Amino acid sequence: MSLNTYGHLFRVTTWGESHGPALGATVDGCPPGIAVDEAFLQQWLDKRRPGQNKNTTQRNEPDAVKILSGMYEGQTTGTPIQLLIENTDQRSKDYGEIVKTFRPGHADITYHLKYGLRDPRGGGRSSARETAARVAAGGIARAALNALVPGIEIKGYMTRMGEMEIDRSRFDWDAIEGNDFWIPDAEAAPEWETYLQSIRKGQNSVGAEIEVVARGVPAGLGAPVYAKLDTDLAAAMMSINAVKGVEIGEGMAAARLTGTENADEIFMGDDGPEYSSNHSGGILGGISSGQDVVVRFAVKPTSSILTPRRSIRLDGSATEVVTKGRHDPCVGIRAVPVGEAMMACVLLDHLLLHRGQVGDGPRGTIG
Amino acid sequence: MSLNTYGHLFRVTTWGESHGPALGATVDGCPPGIAVDEAFLQQWLDKRRPGQNKNTTQRNEPDAVKILSGMYEGQTTGTPIQLLIENTDQRSKDYGEIVKTFRPGHADITYHLKYGLRDPRGGGRSSARETAARVAAGGIARAALNALVPGIEIKGYMTRMGEMEIDRSRFDWDAIEGNDFWIPDAEAAPEWETYLQSIRKGQNSVGAEIEVVARGVPAGLGAPVYAKLDTDLAAAMMSINAVKGVEIGEGMAAARLTGTENADEIFMGDDGPEYSSNHSGGILGGISSGQDVVVRFAVKPTSSILTPRRSIRLDGSATEVVTKGRHDPCVGIRAVPVGEAMMACVLLDHLLLHRGQVGDGPRGTIG
Amino acid sequence: MSLNTYGHLFRVTTWGESHGPALGATVDGCPPGIAVDEAFLQQWLDKRRPGQNKNTTQRNEPDAVKILSGMYEGQTTGTPIQLLIENTDQRSKDYGEIVKTFRPGHADITYHLKYGLRDPRGGGRSSARETAARVAAGGIARAALNALVPGIEIKGYMTRMGEMEIDRSRFDWDAIEGNDFWIPDAEAAPEWETYLQSIRKGQNSVGAEIEVVARGVPAGLGAPVYAKLDTDLAAAMMSINAVKGVEIGEGMAAARLTGTENADEIFMGDDGPEYSSNHSGGILGGISSGQDVVVRFAVKPTSSILTPRRSIRLDGSATEVVTKGRHDPCVGIRAVPVGEAMMACVLLDHLLLHRGQVGDGPRGTIG
Amino acid sequence: MSLNTYGHLFRVTTWGESHGPALGATVDGCPPGIAVDEAFLQQWLDKRRPGQNKNTTQRNEPDAVKILSGMYEGQTTGTPIQLLIENTDQRSKDYGEIVKTFRPGHADITYHLKYGLRDPRGGGRSSARETAARVAAGGIARAALNALVPGIEIKGYMTRMGEMEIDRSRFDWDAIEGNDFWIPDAEAAPEWETYLQSIRKGQNSVGAEIEVVARGVPAGLGAPVYAKLDTDLAAAMMSINAVKGVEIGEGMAAARLTGTENADEIFMGDDGPEYSSNHSGGILGGISSGQDVVVRFAVKPTSSILTPRRSIRLDGSATEVVTKGRHDPCVGIRAVPVGEAMMACVLLDHLLLHRGQVGDGPRGTIG
Repeated sequence: MSLNTYGHLFRVTTWGESHGPALGATVDGCPPGIAVDEAFLQQWLDKRRPGQNKNTTQRNEPDAVKILSGMYEGQTTGTPIQLLIENTDQRSKDYGEIVKTFRPGHADITYHLKYGLRDPRGGGRSSARETAARVAAGGIARAALNALVPGIEIKGYMTRMGEMEIDRSRFDWDAIEGNDFWIPDAEAAPEWETYLQSIRKGQNSVGAEIEVVARGVPAGLGAPVYAKLDTDLAAAMMSINAVKGVEIGEGMAAARLTGTENADEIFMGDDGPEYSSNHSGGILGGISSGQDVVVRFAVKPTSSILTPRRSIRLDGSATEVVTKGRHDPCVGIRAVPVGEAMMACVLLDHLLLHRGQVGDGPRGTIG
Repeated sequence: MSLNTYGHLFRVTTWGESHGPALGATVDGCPPGIAVDEAFLQQWLDKRRPGQNKNTTQRNEPDAVKILSGMYEGQTTGTPIQLLIENTDQRSKDYGEIVKTFRPGHADITYHLKYGLRDPRGGGRSSARETAARVAAGGIARAALNALVPGIEIKGYMTRMGEMEIDRSRFDWDAIEGNDFWIPDAEAAPEWETYLQSIRKGQNSVGAEIEVVARGVPAGLGAPVYAKLDTDLAAAMMSINAVKGVEIGEGMAAARLTGTENADEIFMGDDGPEYSSNHSGGILGGISSGQDVVVRFAVKPTSSILTPRRSIRLDGSATEVVTKGRHDPCVGIRAVPVGEAMMACVLLDHLLLHRGQVGDGPRGTIG
Repeated sequence: MSLNTYGHLFRVTTWGESHGPALGATVDGCPPGIAVDEAFLQQWLDKRRPGQNKNTTQRNEPDAVKILSGMYEGQTTGTPIQLLIENTDQRSKDYGEIVKTFRPGHADITYHLKYGLRDPRGGGRSSARETAARVAAGGIARAALNALVPGIEIKGYMTRMGEMEIDRSRFDWDAIEGNDFWIPDAEAAPEWETYLQSIRKGQNSVGAEIEVVARGVPAGLGAPVYAKLDTDLAAAMMSINAVKGVEIGEGMAAARLTGTENADEIFMGDDGPEYSSNHSGGILGGISSGQDVVVRFAVKPTSSILTPRRSIRLDGSATEVVTKGRHDPCVGIRAVPVGEAMMACVLLDHLLLHRGQVGDGPRGTIG
Repeated sequence: MSLNTYGHLFRVTTWGESHGPALGATVDGCPPGIAVDEAFLQQWLDKRRPGQNKNTTQRNEPDAVKILSGMYEGQTTGTPIQLLIENTDQRSKDYGEIVKTFRPGHADITYHLKYGLRDPRGGGRSSARETAARVAAGGIARAALNALVPGIEIKGYMTRMGEMEIDRSRFDWDAIEGNDFWIPDAEAAPEWETYLQSIRKGQNSVGAEIEVVARGVPAGLGAPVYAKLDTDLAAAMMSINAVKGVEIGEGMAAARLTGTENADEIFMGDDGPEYSSNHSGGILGGISSGQDVVVRFAVKPTSSILTPRRSIRLDGSATEVVTKGRHDPCVGIRAVPVGEAMMACVLLDHLLLHRGQVGDGPRGTIG
């Protein structure tokens, strides 16, 4: 990963600030001949878009993506695809008073210390608005994956929001798209909403845990030792704003297990190897096994809250910060499509890497 | 990260298999004029080396590192440094019977599926023995950091091993080096040993959680948006064998917190900004804040155990696997110096990246 | 270099096709605090812009560059800079008839063979119009170089155009900007113009040789063995459309010289080492010596000519191609600012690389 | 290209100094299942090896390559291949007197200025001995190309050595291997030898021009705009010690041609497109056309000569340098296998890149 680029062969460079004229993504290395259009990309952007419901920020941006290059007659040409999203609702006056103040928990102070200057309008480059460009790029990756790996499916959902936690015994893959929290349990959604409203009314915010699962990933994606599939997934998720932890399969809980508990035993099924469990999260030795690829990440509570927090100004003087803007009480909700986009980009990148080194076809066979 | 290389400017490529003639690391981009020698590197390798005490595998390798290039009269010259470790205790007969069997939880099956062949001797490239090369490279990084950032200090320690967990109220930074488990609590070590012996006697293994802390890291290291310091640390730790989760600061627990709880409030101290807490793990917006950089990772229990696990052979037939070799009951112990090495490499790399883009001196000032 | 990206730390990704809505460059890794604006960039674009005089294509594009990101209050912030140039004069009907024909000497046939499809409008991605984005990015590099290396100067000029060749005994550095051919000899320009008009009237085109010189480059830029300064300059120049050869200093003529002829003898001057000559082109062992950095490249005659050339169609049938569009009789003229831009980008990139590995200050001293 | 690494997917990192214990290459990204052994690599090293005949340096190194990793039972496994060549004939006393003197035309002065120190023994890292590692890596690339592209053939030969030039009307592809100069004209070799002996007796050296041709390269390798096949070939050749110019096809002479002269007209042959000529050197728009890929490069005369040249010492005092060691009168002879190795590495890398982005099979068809 270079400063603002991720990926080995399918390479995405995002650019733009929260309150500049536009932001976007330069997508290089996409396979040619992939059918995709702005409407296909827009569906994922709409999922991430603020102002969708009362649980997310009321900033109202259409977040309409334009494809400026790399397409001809509805197909990718193999040349770079420029995705542009104009910033239409900038209202920078909301942020004017904090130009000389460092908001606790924000990148204000570290950007200042590093660069000697920063764009203070809406957090500039460190704004979560940057993730809109990732979601657009993820749409390109999804279109390519759909063409190259028929049947592949990628879904993200919340597994925790503060005190709320999903009940895995009630897990319903098909319920995810049907509620405002992207949780796999339609009946639990009202309770989550009540909880989040209490957080908001308390002038507070709350963290969240998101799980992203990819089904139908072919075995063999990934590579030893530093371009492991799990390495790149960890990097991709950790690069999302506010993320503080990443887990593959069993995750941090693996520290509590014994070897007998953790073993995913192997059986021969009709279509190849099958496993008694998926503690590994679908990845062994950095390479996909054919099981579901399972990644989880935690998003910290947004630091932009109405409850005053102590801080300092540029001149070193003490102050209190109350962030009045239009902020999500739980940014984890909108992190769901971002996590899905990162999963799509990493999987496509590793698919291309694999066929680069090893070729199109299967290599090892069993049985 | 390319397949077997990590780092942007300080770039480490490891190579070699568990039972080949040798393994090593090619270290490129080291600053010139750094005083370092084989004895300095050896101290970290000895820490990782098996056979040190009864809690680690009895495989007895001296793991003596040789510097083959990039040095002149005791100093680095700025050209690539080749670090070579010969494999002396290969005893490959231990592994002969599993050539045609996939060990559950190992990379055997995914390497086979990906490449169509694999080096089965001791796990080949997927063996944890690869981490010896990382530790050697980390020694070079430590030497450069010591020269460029006087006072910087990097220490790793175990925070959990199965049911054992450290008591943070008894945390003793100076106790870490004084016990077999690298735990920050000398008195707890005997209890950990008793526990681990019971695991071993039960023909089992157990996972672990390791925390690595860097003190004295200057503010300003890291970069938006994909070369964030936390992104690269997450990738570095996740690339270590058997790691299933990575956390920065509060980590996955951030999902349970509210914004008021999670805020690290800022004060002006005598030497610059100070903070009321370190939920952020020393990183804001991907850039170091000057606080301690805190990373945690979980290592799964080794899958090589004496208790039989069900699996399949190359021909698809069912079998049971009992791994008889000389294996650690908890690989987390030896993961401690590996985590330290990765921390050192990532910090040096970002120090070089920072002065590349921004220059040697400080940029932003406060007060 | 990745597919559409060049540079190690100062990284430029260009995107866009000749006849799409826009093209541009994503510039990542620029140092912060560099003062630059659209007007500064525009001066170099105007130099490259078609329709300037009767010696270049009459396609009339304002080529106005917009900065969409990475700036705040007139200074770079250290985050990615998006440079956008809209395509306003697209007239794609000019090109309609060649959609199914491969123009000899063009990338039509290789793009088709590689990707299975191509954007035929104006050559799509393979159009020389892509170089407008490089020139804009080069303007950013120039601004940064001016700030970091006071006194540095980069100039390109033609040294040959078909039968016309400059007389080095009449070399006038200050004359370069004062004529339509960017030649260092004001009096020769009318003869060059007469020659080029005869080429044009003959329904033909002609090749050219361009030399780019950088004065005031500090010693020490470059790196063994594959990121040599000359390696990266060769790659940068060869990546420009229609370039078929690159020379450093003596260039291909070095094959004819003896060791005594080729030696640049060294003397001690008042400000450091001086040399009896500059056969080396300012680069020894891949690292700048402090002498002028001298690069030359040859541009082939444009293949788009009015004289019929034999070719084939998509269906394999034979045809003759006459390219009627608005084409330069010598693309070498407009290649001059492109070569300058590439020189600026490579030098800045190596300046950042150098201070990344070695630091800001001088290292070795003499005397 | 990073400092000491080249390639995108097939990545070669060379390491080692002329007079250290060893040098070598770390080869990452090789496809699995390629049959190769040390004897196969040794044949190319023997071609480059000094002391072969009276036209090259009498330094006598066996240059025996050892494969330390990445192989199992005679096949590549897809993991990094470490190639090690021990330095056996170091005789560093030959060089002792020049530790404090900068040899004109050498990297001594620029390494010193950049790094503040250098390994003076035999030129250290800047020695042409580094190219032995490239040749070994090139052998791996050849083995993989032979497996993936049956019928591909790569040959290099000298086209000029000072006043000697080949007569292309007598070009004989099969004569190349049969004479000490690798020239395609057996009868001319004695005259070349007489000329070179006169250069040597005159205590002088001479430059050379080498052409490397690849036959049977599939169409479609390469990529716009900065990973063009010609861009990467130019970089690869320019990175070889002493190279000052690189040409593709017509090369610098393209500056003298008109569009009608330069056009490679296209016809439909039995097996696909054919061309009336190959001015393009087999590359159009950065992508291979299926014609022979033709690269030429010029090597300057070695600066290590017995005729005194004026220079300075570390303390700035004036001196004269006479290089007594065992040096080639024309390093161009031994540059031939190096150029071939670089061609092999670049072609394999682009083959992998192509199938990564576009897949194994053909894409566009004609007719």
